[in-house]
Amino acid sequence: MIGLGNMGKSHADQILTGKVPGLELTAVADCDAQRLEKFADLQRYTDGTALIQSGTIDAVLIATPHYDHTTLGIAALEAGLHTLVEKPISVHKADCERLIAAHTNKKLVFAAMFNQRTDPAYLKLRELIQSGELGTIQRINWIITDWYRTESYYRSGGWRATWGGEGGGVLLNQCPHNLDLLQWLFGMPSKINANCQLGRFHNIEVEDAVTAMLEYPSGATGVFITSTGEAPGTNRLEVAADHGKVVIENGSFRYTRTETLVPDHLATEPGAFNKPGVWNVEIPTNGRGEQHVGIMQNFTNAILKDETLLAPAAEGIHSVELANAMLHSSLEKTTVELPLDGALYEATLKKRIENSTYVKPEVAPTEVTDMRSSF
Amino acid sequence: MIGLGNMGKSHADQILTGKVPGLELTAVADCDAQRLEKFADLQRYTDGTALIQSGTIDAVLIATPHYDHTTLGIAALEAGLHTLVEKPISVHKADCERLIAAHTNKKLVFAAMFNQRTDPAYLKLRELIQSGELGTIQRINWIITDWYRTESYYRSGGWRATWGGEGGGVLLNQCPHNLDLLQWLFGMPSKINANCQLGRFHNIEVEDAVTAMLEYPSGATGVFITSTGEAPGTNRLEVAADHGKVVIENGSFRYTRTETLVPDHLATEPGAFNKPGVWNVEIPTNGRGEQHVGIMQNFTNAILKDETLLAPAAEGIHSVELANAMLHSSLEKTTVELPLDGALYEATLKKRIENSTYVKPEVAPTEVTDMRSSF
Repeated sequence: MIGLGNMGKSHADQILTGKVPGLELTAVADCDAQRLEKFADLQRYTDGTALIQSGTIDAVLIATPHYDHTTLGIAALEAGLHTLVEKPISVHKADCERLIAAHTNKKLVFAAMFNQRTDPAYLKLRELIQSGELGTIQRINWIITDWYRTESYYRSGGWRATWGGEGGGVLLNQCPHNLDLLQWLFGMPSKINANCQLGRFHNIEVEDAVTAMLEYPSGATGVFITSTGEAPGTNRLEVAADHGKVVIENGSFRYTRTETLVPDHLATEPGAFNKPGVWNVEIPTNGRGEQHVGIMQNFTNAILKDETLLAPAAEGIHSVELANAMLHSSLEKTTVELPLDGALYEATLKKRIENSTYVKPEVAPTEVTDMRSSF
Repeated sequence: MIGLGNMGKSHADQILTGKVPGLELTAVADCDAQRLEKFADLQRYTDGTALIQSGTIDAVLIATPHYDHTTLGIAALEAGLHTLVEKPISVHKADCERLIAAHTNKKLVFAAMFNQRTDPAYLKLRELIQSGELGTIQRINWIITDWYRTESYYRSGGWRATWGGEGGGVLLNQCPHNLDLLQWLFGMPSKINANCQLGRFHNIEVEDAVTAMLEYPSGATGVFITSTGEAPGTNRLEVAADHGKVVIENGSFRYTRTETLVPDHLATEPGAFNKPGVWNVEIPTNGRGEQHVGIMQNFTNAILKDETLLAPAAEGIHSVELANAMLHSSLEKTTVELPLDGALYEATLKKRIENSTYVKPEVAPTEVTDMRSSF
């Protein structure tokens, strides 16, 4: 395990308490020596690269601040280690391409921590889409504004919510999950127009409120809305398709299924205002799935038993590209046509970092926050 | 009553069956003589202007296709008649200004058919906003995609869904209600960025699917989504504010009220992930209100008893400006800063009309559709 901050500490605890059969934690690394004290029985390193080069491990989980995912991920793959990297896999598209290019030895398992792919509701939606049950997707609306964070959160680490430290705000830290699910479920849009508001709710230099309009090659449209400044917030995914509508919210999966395909009804129904009949379907989806433990188990089983990866790291480029495209659209006041020019965005981001005059208010002393509320 | 098409016929029936005490229907006009046959006991005109000039009436309700609202409205006000005009009050902002400018005699009651202002849920939301109960509004999301219309609907009138006949599609015909409520509840935005898809679901030349991002002077954001091609569709208004969240959907009014104001909690809470506590409040709002009959009654009472107008026609310019701005943003691929330049938009619209090559498929013979499903 490299990185024993909020997420790394949480993952380490899960492994040490035997939640992931087949996975053994033998070595940890963190640049903060104090964090290593709690792991006196393990090999300890203050340098992640030293752990990678140690020759004592088969696999590594990288849970450092985002920028290091690229450099440490490349080092791990080059050292012949199976690699599980926290989200986002990199901060910007060009770095994603560098990281993915390092995965030349396909015998190495290379996965990303997209734990929300284990959620039964999203798995079920994906199944309904891929089987053709829903018909063509026409419209997507995801309001994901329950990533509420206090000012105290942003002061818990100097790297947090800075261009240089995270390369963005809510889109790079909290939303990689949702953006990954978005592309996993619906594929990539062809156009993005976004309004990313910088430091609207918090004293930070990056975005903490985003509204984005998407358009897909099919003509389907999407809206993605997020914020860390709203309470109680909403997490509601609505999908309109040719066979009706799905709404996932508050643990429920509601499918309003039209009895005929909408385009057929629209073309042939003689009444001006008549709608197709519907079934109100409630699909049970118990709980939230195995989440982080599920991804670690899948990674382990992929190494030991050739199990298919639920979240291959290479797919992590899409959520980064979506985040980058939203920021680019807003910062440059333009509609972004995908695929995004990775080099162009890297230059935009570097300019932001160079021109940053932001000074963080006092940062709380390094400590590990209880991450059981984080995903 | 001028215009005995879908809406005019429906309004006439309500008045003739005594639903609006104090209001008497004595004269009707329609360019289609056949439609007049059903009103053999009344004065009948094939020309609205002749009815206006007849000297036999005190007030007029104009329920013609939209473009005539301006010309007939001006004629009615100049003839000294109290005037109730169907929505939209005009097709574009410059025409709205011309119409409103004709209202020089303030003794004349001049109202617009914004019947959804009578809905108890929207009245309650307005009360919570205006009293300060909700605190500052931060985000609005209105998905109003249950305006489903079949191809048969669009073939029920040659003027329907053409630039020359309606000046737009769903934004000008169905959404004036929602756009009016939007500005009535939240005021006008300062920026609009929209994607209006022309003939996406139907064989028409105007927009039948719209996604719009709004930004308000306060920094608050909004999203407005509509379509006539979706079934079952959604009508869900979500409002996030400093005191929590309101959702109006399917006849329910849910208010998730935070125990402390969100900005105060965000600034002072020491925990990184803690949210303010909430109350789940369900506010009863019985039924949909008096709708068209309510507006006709209010118009009548304003004339006879000096009752305050619920929907003064002058306020109708705002919904038209919002519709125009969304179309302008999409057609010209630009962010529109409000106020919209009315002359500029009029030129854009005229260009659309002049350049139109659209030929409507066979139009069904003129007949009156049962409008009990329309609002």
